[in-house]
Amino acid sequence: MEAISAQEQPPGVCPHFHDAIELIGKRWTGAIVFSLTEGPLRFGELAKAVPGLSDRLLSQRLRELEEAGVVQREVEEGTPTRVIYSLTEKGADLRPTMFELRAWARRWKSAA
Amino acid sequence: MEAISAQEQPPGVCPHFHDAIELIGKRWTGAIVFSLTEGPLRFGELAKAVPGLSDRLLSQRLRELEEAGVVQREVEEGTPTRVIYSLTEKGADLRPTMFELRAWARRWKSAA
Repeated sequence: MEAISAQEQPPGVCPHFHDAIELIGKRWTGAIVFSLTEGPLRFGELAKAVPGLSDRLLSQRLRELEEAGVVQREVEEGTPTRVIYSLTEKGADLRPTMFELRAWARRWKSAA
Repeated sequence: MEAISAQEQPPGVCPHFHDAIELIGKRWTGAIVFSLTEGPLRFGELAKAVPGLSDRLLSQRLRELEEAGVVQREVEEGTPTRVIYSLTEKGADLRPTMFELRAWARRWKSAA
């Protein structure tokens, strides 16, 4: 165990980190972003990729991610019109974090 | 935008990833783990490092992290006795994820 030096600046969580983890960590949000790391998905595909949440909650989370600039929504022309969701440049830049966390989860999946 | 191939396996979120993001993303949990990446902290130091949550909620989150094997709690001998929290090996292994997320947050802090 490392000693705690009283001379050190009092520890504090980086506020940017805090905002980021509160965004990505929100229930289902991480799973939604993770699903989109593989490419754009239609609403129904996203709903299948992240089972367990209602369409209403999925819509809400997608709106929040749009507001945060992480996800973009595009309407595909045609009949019926289809809505496609994809990661923005900012959202795609979350890939390394997502993949690190997945690697961690796999390394420790059987550990208490 | 990449095309979605119908031949591809239907996308699904890795269940280990999902569990991990639900753990780490829980309100305040990410901030608590992040604070501990710099070394062990006493309860009061943690409370200062993560302002905004009550002692009761901090205790609860720490218990959850102990149950998940991410944080360990040690009682320091002496008067008064002090409780020290630190990351386990499993918890310390979250550092790359935490640092990636912080780097992302800093890169995009002024972007919408």
